Amino acid sequence: MAPHRNLEQMFNPSHIAIIGASATSGKVGHTVLLNLITAGYKGKIYPVNPNVDTILGLPTVRKINDLPQNLDMAVLCIPSEHCLEALEQLAQISVKSVVIISAGFKEVGGLGWKLEEEVIKLAKKHNIAVLGPNCLGYINIDKGINVTFAEGQPKSGTIGFFSQSGALCIGIIDWSKNKNIGFSHFISVGNKAVIDESDILTFLANDPNTKVIVGYLESVENGSRFLRNAEAASAKKPVILLRAGSSNSGAKAASSHTGALAGRDAAYEAAFKQSGILRAREMEELFQLAQAFALQPIPLGPNIAVVTNSGGPGIVAADACEHYGLTMTSLKPETIHTLKEILPSYAAFFNPVDVLGDATPTRIVQTVKTVLADEMVHSLVVLLSPTAQTPMEQIARELVAVFEAIPKDKKKPIFCCFMGGTLVNEAKNILSSAGYPCYDFPEPAMRSAKALFDYKKRKEALPPVEVTYRRDKNKAESVIKKALREGSCELAEFQAQGLLEAYELPTPTTKLCRTSQEAMDIAHKIGFPVVMKIASPHILHKSDVGGVVLNIKNKEEAKEAFLTITSKTQRLRPDAHISGCLVQAMAPSGSREVIVGVKRDPQFGPLVLFGLGGIHVETLKDFSTRLAPLTLSDAHDMIREIKAYPILAGMRGEKPINFNALEDILLIMSQLALDFPLIEEAEFNPVLVNEKGALVADIRIILAHKES
Amino acid sequence: MAPHRNLEQMFNPSHIAIIGASATSGKVGHTVLLNLITAGYKGKIYPVNPNVDTILGLPTVRKINDLPQNLDMAVLCIPSEHCLEALEQLAQISVKSVVIISAGFKEVGGLGWKLEEEVIKLAKKHNIAVLGPNCLGYINIDKGINVTFAEGQPKSGTIGFFSQSGALCIGIIDWSKNKNIGFSHFISVGNKAVIDESDILTFLANDPNTKVIVGYLESVENGSRFLRNAEAASAKKPVILLRAGSSNSGAKAASSHTGALAGRDAAYEAAFKQSGILRAREMEELFQLAQAFALQPIPLGPNIAVVTNSGGPGIVAADACEHYGLTMTSLKPETIHTLKEILPSYAAFFNPVDVLGDATPTRIVQTVKTVLADEMVHSLVVLLSPTAQTPMEQIARELVAVFEAIPKDKKKPIFCCFMGGTLVNEAKNILSSAGYPCYDFPEPAMRSAKALFDYKKRKEALPPVEVTYRRDKNKAESVIKKALREGSCELAEFQAQGLLEAYELPTPTTKLCRTSQEAMDIAHKIGFPVVMKIASPHILHKSDVGGVVLNIKNKEEAKEAFLTITSKTQRLRPDAHISGCLVQAMAPSGSREVIVGVKRDPQFGPLVLFGLGGIHVETLKDFSTRLAPLTLSDAHDMIREIKAYPILAGMRGEKPINFNALEDILLIMSQLALDFPLIEEAEFNPVLVNEKGALVADIRIILAHKES
Repeated sequence: MAPHRNLEQMFNPSHIAIIGASATSGKVGHTVLLNLITAGYKGKIYPVNPNVDTILGLPTVRKINDLPQNLDMAVLCIPSEHCLEALEQLAQISVKSVVIISAGFKEVGGLGWKLEEEVIKLAKKHNIAVLGPNCLGYINIDKGINVTFAEGQPKSGTIGFFSQSGALCIGIIDWSKNKNIGFSHFISVGNKAVIDESDILTFLANDPNTKVIVGYLESVENGSRFLRNAEAASAKKPVILLRAGSSNSGAKAASSHTGALAGRDAAYEAAFKQSGILRAREMEELFQLAQAFALQPIPLGPNIAVVTNSGGPGIVAADACEHYGLTMTSLKPETIHTLKEILPSYAAFFNPVDVLGDATPTRIVQTVKTVLADEMVHSLVVLLSPTAQTPMEQIARELVAVFEAIPKDKKKPIFCCFMGGTLVNEAKNILSSAGYPCYDFPEPAMRSAKALFDYKKRKEALPPVEVTYRRDKNKAESVIKKALREGSCELAEFQAQGLLEAYELPTPTTKLCRTSQEAMDIAHKIGFPVVMKIASPHILHKSDVGGVVLNIKNKEEAKEAFLTITSKTQRLRPDAHISGCLVQAMAPSGSREVIVGVKRDPQFGPLVLFGLGGIHVETLKDFSTRLAPLTLSDAHDMIREIKAYPILAGMRGEKPINFNALEDILLIMSQLALDFPLIEEAEFNPVLVNEKGALVADIRIILAHKES
Repeated sequence: MAPHRNLEQMFNPSHIAIIGASATSGKVGHTVLLNLITAGYKGKIYPVNPNVDTILGLPTVRKINDLPQNLDMAVLCIPSEHCLEALEQLAQISVKSVVIISAGFKEVGGLGWKLEEEVIKLAKKHNIAVLGPNCLGYINIDKGINVTFAEGQPKSGTIGFFSQSGALCIGIIDWSKNKNIGFSHFISVGNKAVIDESDILTFLANDPNTKVIVGYLESVENGSRFLRNAEAASAKKPVILLRAGSSNSGAKAASSHTGALAGRDAAYEAAFKQSGILRAREMEELFQLAQAFALQPIPLGPNIAVVTNSGGPGIVAADACEHYGLTMTSLKPETIHTLKEILPSYAAFFNPVDVLGDATPTRIVQTVKTVLADEMVHSLVVLLSPTAQTPMEQIARELVAVFEAIPKDKKKPIFCCFMGGTLVNEAKNILSSAGYPCYDFPEPAMRSAKALFDYKKRKEALPPVEVTYRRDKNKAESVIKKALREGSCELAEFQAQGLLEAYELPTPTTKLCRTSQEAMDIAHKIGFPVVMKIASPHILHKSDVGGVVLNIKNKEEAKEAFLTITSKTQRLRPDAHISGCLVQAMAPSGSREVIVGVKRDPQFGPLVLFGLGGIHVETLKDFSTRLAPLTLSDAHDMIREIKAYPILAGMRGEKPINFNALEDILLIMSQLALDFPLIEEAEFNPVLVNEKGALVADIRIILAHKES
């Protein structure tokens, strides 16, 4: 979806008014103005202050009404209780965008919450783009705009950053300067009353100065809009996000496996995966990856070479390489041949290439050049410890020259790691200012290499194929309506049969029998062995009340099973209305039991879950998730990314299952959940799959309490 | 085992000779002498140089023979080809210990390897403690000894560090200075010709200046000695190691699950676990944990409180807390009551406690004091971002005063995290110099809190109980000898029966039948249903040749099975001698199949493996390992630490297995492997366990090719 139409005016204004500009040093309205002037803004600045004539050398405007019409942008640095009035006055002069730095809104609850709602209403009415409230402001580095109250300005670069936490912004600005990490935009989104992460994603995706989008997120305002915008942004450039708040997902009591397993964070995890977002797991990692993407090209493949002057760290790098699923590549014979000319006989010519502790700058640089030229090498890690023989700054300069000499179409990602403190700090600075990230330790270097390769793999993934299945929506709807009329929010197998038919879901032959005689006859007709299960709209956990008997081999056993099941359940659940028993054909030979579930996430909508039955999903937590609508490749990947996948592929001479049939069932589950927003949770459990096909042997549906 | 008897003289010498001391700046023999003088060594220094009279103001000794008798320590800074001669001369004057810095030994292979062997021989003959060769030397900070050629000296502290990589030492010395990380000892062990990690562990464990032992290790010289010394050291103080080289473990073709799964690193993993060593996973983590242990007390429990002035990072900390299995504790009502007096109404009074971005030093410090006093809180994380209201250095100083005021018996671990660069650097310095680690980001702070709590849990673990089982070693030996006489290195079930009996291992009733008639009779006697398996010393993978039939229900089926199995196997393996079939009782009801295996690690000896049968071990890699001899608690823990443990504990109304019976089988496997060093690999697969007991249903033994 398109972002707010005034976003361009907000981040690229021709003139800026600072409402609440102050002459008193230390006040927010002073710091913001000072930052804006210091950043070198070329546009017109209007400090608005009713009491003084000039602030920081600029003539003030006494009141908002005196500002020119169609003002591009205003910053509010006034107490929250005056914001609404100011916003109304700004609307009168047709302001395009407003940054509300003031706190005291939704985050304080009560009246603040109400105030924010008024701001939203007003902004919508007048089409004003509002950033914040309760934010730090933003910085557009190349345009010389800094309307934040943070101390200091980050370096210029190609990372477009946004954050839901203002405090984090302040820390990061300060931290990033030491690390030579540079930004194009630095945006604090605050309470996201109007402008949210989805707008920012689209804005930064379209921004030519931004090479990589990086964000800190606690929540998403609009799940489906976020998915669309994130997917579009990812298609243009790498998007790396840290999502905090996974521990708040809570353990809401849920009535299905899917419900219990798919916490709130599972929806974020799926949303990120499906929209191509790379998820950072730690704060430092977020910026390490950001820098790697900002500075380095995407590799052609997974092959890594390590050049080092120290054996130990070389081994650590090789361990990390394996850990991250990259390949310590073999070098070409020509490369090894050349290395033998450059290096002493007791050096290590294989990867990691150890040039030894006594290596001179020439030996190091020649080796790096040689290894870098090897086509087998997709990414290079240069790992140096300072020794008496290594004037680190000279080496850094010579390495930069080697890296820069590579023709543009032959560039490879290069990650340096200089281990040490004062002996290497300046050398690291030389490398990172020239555009080559330099780490303290081997592991983060390898982690960055892995992230770049992951991005490459995602870019190459097949385009999504959307599928629609034939189904009888009216029939399905009548099943659901009937259940609701009967006051039931959970549909057991017995009631959900109609849904299975409406969606043409393959099921094992299943018939309802009301007497033991019927049970014998129907079982005989279906053909032994059969399964018998209690049929009651009030009993969802059939096994718990002894409501299932497997492997019934003859009429006698069928009679026995019917009587046992019905009497046992009636005793244990005297409240339940029992319609009889369902008789079902046994699982076809070679069947494996899987679970296909769905749970509606309040933000992202239906989250589909897949896993092997038995203990795999519940106990081993071996399952995969995606948000609906699933594409063909989503269904394909979900089945293959569980650990127990080899069981489906066939072990010990077993035949592989019919994957297409199982993919269909996943896709139909996705469609069912999209067709009926009333469905809160649904589960096909078990689904029986063998080499021939897949059968949904049982189904449970949980409906929302009210029509949506 | 006791360390080398001259270790004390090596690390605490009254006089030191520098063989190869040089007047030429930049030469190793010059740097070592300079470092020693600069470090402030109080003992006597003898620079040995045949050509000059004084070096760096010290009078030289012209040749080794002129040195005093019973010299405590000499450092060799001469080319490797002269080392042997020098060592011989040093032996003449009864030197106690020698540090060989010179490279050109085992690490260059060939002649170097031979040279190192000569060094070892000579050192053993004269009882000389030798550190190195090919090492950086060592630093004993409090004694003012620095016999390394590294630039600079680390700060004084309580971390005893050793490293198998010299290059890493140089990097770490330099890196640690900026981070206020201080050391008691800094030891580069080099090639470990004589003194190895086991000696160093014991030395540092006994050293009163060392509070925590930290090491970088690639390999262990003597597995069982390492285990003993590490266990003794861990009992005295925390030992944290980084083991590099896991990616070299290689995939040696192996003939059992155990063999295939238990790579070399699995033995290290088990060795570390059993000896109480904490394993760091990354280089930076090694030193972050080291600093935490060096500076902070051990917590009473898992409860964490976070005090922050920034919501976002507070959430990140809470996520990390959950991720690491720690508890974000509730605060006591009294604490919350006090907080409500200190903090504005819209602050967060619950954990994480958010004092808000406008918090003054007083508000921050009072909150920290209040939360720290709460008995529910076992460890505290203080998480600050710099704002206009936060003079970070003042806050740091006031926090230190609060921390220091806590009585000694009420100290709790405190981890600070000040996010930023230049705005917080000095504040961080104030904290870390006062003994309070301060991190850049929340996650490493929480990782450190977790490591301290892990250590507490380990210290509280029950003391190991050793167990011995009754067994008939002679009988077992005769089984193995017979197999070897027959030229067979693999004992199949059929041949290994005697071993099972010798160790009184419970087995399902199993009989050999040679004809189909016998098969029918024996099966009838055992009682249907039965299992039938091929009996051949040449067939180990019975299923692969159709050599197993399960669930034989009557005599007719028994006959059929016998004929099918024998004819099929004979056709597929015409080379195999077939003795007939084994008839075995079926698995008792409620049985779960588990695997108990053992594989001999060249360094650490028998490594016992446990896991659930089926796909769990092979595909899901869900297994646990320990080195023999297992203690009772090892066996107990191995069974409980696999993910599939709930299956054994009983799911969905199933009864829990007889854990004692299964533990017995693990302990017997450990004993079997210790009793017979000839056994390379052994596997009980499956072991059938139910609520009553455990039965070893099949066994395979792989013997070493030569008697050891």
